[in-house]
Amino acid sequence: MQMKATSIKSLYRETKKYIDSNIVVAGWVRTIRDSKAFGFIELNDGTFFKNLQVVFEDEKIDNFKEIAKLPVGSAIIVHGKLVETPGAKQPFEIKADKIEIEGLSQPDYPLQKKRHSFEFLRTIAHLRPRTNTFSAVFRIRSLAAYAIHKFFQDRGFVYVHTPIITGSDAEGAGKMFRVTTLDLDNVPRQEDGSIDYSEDFFGRETNLTVSGQLEGETYAMAFRNIYTFGPTFRAENSNTPRHAAEFWMVEPEMAFADLNDNMEVAEDMLKYIIKYCMENAPEEMEFFNNFVDKGLFDRLNNVVNSDFVRITYTEAIDILLESKEKFEYPVKWGCDLQTEHERYLTEKVFKKPVFVTDYPKDIKAFYMKLNDDNKTVAAMDLLVPGVGEIIGGSQREDRVEVLQQRMKELNLKEEEYWWYVDLRKYGGTRHAGFGLGFERAIMYITGMTNIRDVIPFPRTVNNAEF
Amino acid sequence: MQMKATSIKSLYRETKKYIDSNIVVAGWVRTIRDSKAFGFIELNDGTFFKNLQVVFEDEKIDNFKEIAKLPVGSAIIVHGKLVETPGAKQPFEIKADKIEIEGLSQPDYPLQKKRHSFEFLRTIAHLRPRTNTFSAVFRIRSLAAYAIHKFFQDRGFVYVHTPIITGSDAEGAGKMFRVTTLDLDNVPRQEDGSIDYSEDFFGRETNLTVSGQLEGETYAMAFRNIYTFGPTFRAENSNTPRHAAEFWMVEPEMAFADLNDNMEVAEDMLKYIIKYCMENAPEEMEFFNNFVDKGLFDRLNNVVNSDFVRITYTEAIDILLESKEKFEYPVKWGCDLQTEHERYLTEKVFKKPVFVTDYPKDIKAFYMKLNDDNKTVAAMDLLVPGVGEIIGGSQREDRVEVLQQRMKELNLKEEEYWWYVDLRKYGGTRHAGFGLGFERAIMYITGMTNIRDVIPFPRTVNNAEF
Repeated sequence: MQMKATSIKSLYRETKKYIDSNIVVAGWVRTIRDSKAFGFIELNDGTFFKNLQVVFEDEKIDNFKEIAKLPVGSAIIVHGKLVETPGAKQPFEIKADKIEIEGLSQPDYPLQKKRHSFEFLRTIAHLRPRTNTFSAVFRIRSLAAYAIHKFFQDRGFVYVHTPIITGSDAEGAGKMFRVTTLDLDNVPRQEDGSIDYSEDFFGRETNLTVSGQLEGETYAMAFRNIYTFGPTFRAENSNTPRHAAEFWMVEPEMAFADLNDNMEVAEDMLKYIIKYCMENAPEEMEFFNNFVDKGLFDRLNNVVNSDFVRITYTEAIDILLESKEKFEYPVKWGCDLQTEHERYLTEKVFKKPVFVTDYPKDIKAFYMKLNDDNKTVAAMDLLVPGVGEIIGGSQREDRVEVLQQRMKELNLKEEEYWWYVDLRKYGGTRHAGFGLGFERAIMYITGMTNIRDVIPFPRTVNNAEF
Repeated sequence: MQMKATSIKSLYRETKKYIDSNIVVAGWVRTIRDSKAFGFIELNDGTFFKNLQVVFEDEKIDNFKEIAKLPVGSAIIVHGKLVETPGAKQPFEIKADKIEIEGLSQPDYPLQKKRHSFEFLRTIAHLRPRTNTFSAVFRIRSLAAYAIHKFFQDRGFVYVHTPIITGSDAEGAGKMFRVTTLDLDNVPRQEDGSIDYSEDFFGRETNLTVSGQLEGETYAMAFRNIYTFGPTFRAENSNTPRHAAEFWMVEPEMAFADLNDNMEVAEDMLKYIIKYCMENAPEEMEFFNNFVDKGLFDRLNNVVNSDFVRITYTEAIDILLESKEKFEYPVKWGCDLQTEHERYLTEKVFKKPVFVTDYPKDIKAFYMKLNDDNKTVAAMDLLVPGVGEIIGGSQREDRVEVLQQRMKELNLKEEEYWWYVDLRKYGGTRHAGFGLGFERAIMYITGMTNIRDVIPFPRTVNNAEF
């Protein structure tokens, strides 16, 4: 396949097999330098984080002068012998017999060898994966996505594609994007002047989903264990380093499972993803630990090797009140935990990941199971050092009357959720699930601090370029 | 996890381990029948296609009468001993010591034991995965999705999440859904009366993507081999069994690859997915072959065991012209191939999958590589028996001037594609890729004939329920 070019990854991973062999490699020039009679190219072929050093000599290759002047970023195909280079920085290099130019770059190529700010690189999102940082970020993103699939598939969970375009509003929370084929220039009206959505594509108002959970629950009641993994959307005007309008979410849902089962799976999953990335991209992870976030390995190893703490919200509030710490947002029972509170708990008090459970019902969603105290719900948030909340979940309300009562309190129309209520009528079970914001996880694993830098082409307020 | 209930899948796959042991199983009542002193339940727990037979006796369980009257669909937890049943239809059964009712169903449960039409089941899409057919469909869907990830990840391809909300139009083809936060009741206007999109969330017009290919190409120029796998959208008013407004697409893209490489990967991938489903869900596949599509195994084995044919479009036209077959749509060089032509080629002429390459440029997209004849492009469509086209792809135009010329001819604005053109300026390479409509593949693998029956909650004209 692909001209039988050997991947640079194979050269590093199976070096013995290739040393002193004639090989062909195809990739892009990262840097180039030459003296009169010979030159060096750092070649990256996208299969591996590290480059391959190419040595080319005037005596051996026909087009020496042309190659010596190649602009950075050019694509070339190198034929030659792989030789060991004992004592040198790199373990081996290729001595070129022939170098073909596949595609020239230009002198105005934006990725010249110098440091570029992340802000600048966002403006060339189509080129930034060619840099060290972003090739590492997006390889980790790919591996982490696969780790999630592998974790759940190995455990028999069924992957469900819940709908992106939806007529319902998963939580009554979160501003939504309208999806329409109506002519905005000439919106059709009914006799009373209101918009005639019967003319819209779906014959009704539709939006982009904010969560696949409710639909996911319907499949958990058929397959026992399921997960979703797809894009979700928020039309919130939050121009922060942690908010994007479009992001991916993982949402497992398990029948016959309670809050303890839920925490067990969340803990196992998070540890699994981290380990998978560390084992399958050690060079990239090393790079993040050295150049992006010096404490990264300490933090990740702490997560992987800890038994996560489990405390109730009420206990958490007591700890915060007793701490005498000055918080920007004052603490009292009933308040939502802010990032400062979450980080205090996980970084200062416990120094490892903490599940906080049983939050006041008034700060949580309608579908969470009401506890016997009638004041709290069987919710769980996982807090991790360095970030705060990374996973949110709950056991779901499985009693039909209690669910209906909660919906009434919150002015949700039962007729819009008829199918969700049905699940409690026809063989409902205790069940639980959670959501992991995939980008938050990638930020956590890489140490990158802006969500715009872990999404290939981020969508944020006033930005949908590319 | 989950009350330590053993999955019915484990009972079938590791029978020896469980025979004569006391176990707990948790699932839903598919059927129930009883005589005076004992009864039988067919229990399905969602982990496996087949049911577990539960035998319960008045002498042994306290709540015999209550259990005997359980409505179909109820959720129960059964404690008992697994025993072999030589000579019986099923290999083993569980003799219940105790049956707990987890959640009652109701007498009006729509899935009583009788045949339901697929049309009816679409109206209860939240319950239909509890039927044999749809549990099989959606388990295959999950496995096929995973097979795709595994195929590409094992080969070092990087998974890229291309954007769902887009400011660009990937092909100049395909009607798109508008995404907006503008108040449709009161659309903001500029002074000249035109809509003021600067007030919209992204400060511009945005739509739902029809393809991630163009963005995918940018990542192929960094990682060499990438793939996308995500939802795509068409706002076309096509109310057919093969069209949905929302569907998932797989789009690999490879640098340093030509059309032959492309065909090789497409062929390997399709065979891999089919084999993966057959190996990992033999019971489900058997069911499809017996009850949904009698010729399924013949068809799939033919695909898996064939070397796919490769012919040019011009050869295909010649074959069709010489065939003397009466087609609804007349054949001549330059026409697009219709399903009847495609099926004739693959079913009547070659009796196996056929790649047709090098189509007239006028019926293909602007980004396909122009051949030296100046009339055709390096496109490829894969035709399979029973369906027709299942994969479409091409080598991409990598010469910047030719690309610009093609865009001009088709009235595409270069400034909207500046980043796409950049790829040809800065170290472009020959490259190629293709798209597989995931639902079409699932229909092909299962024999299901309506796309509405392979999507959990399908979105089609006038339908966005659930």
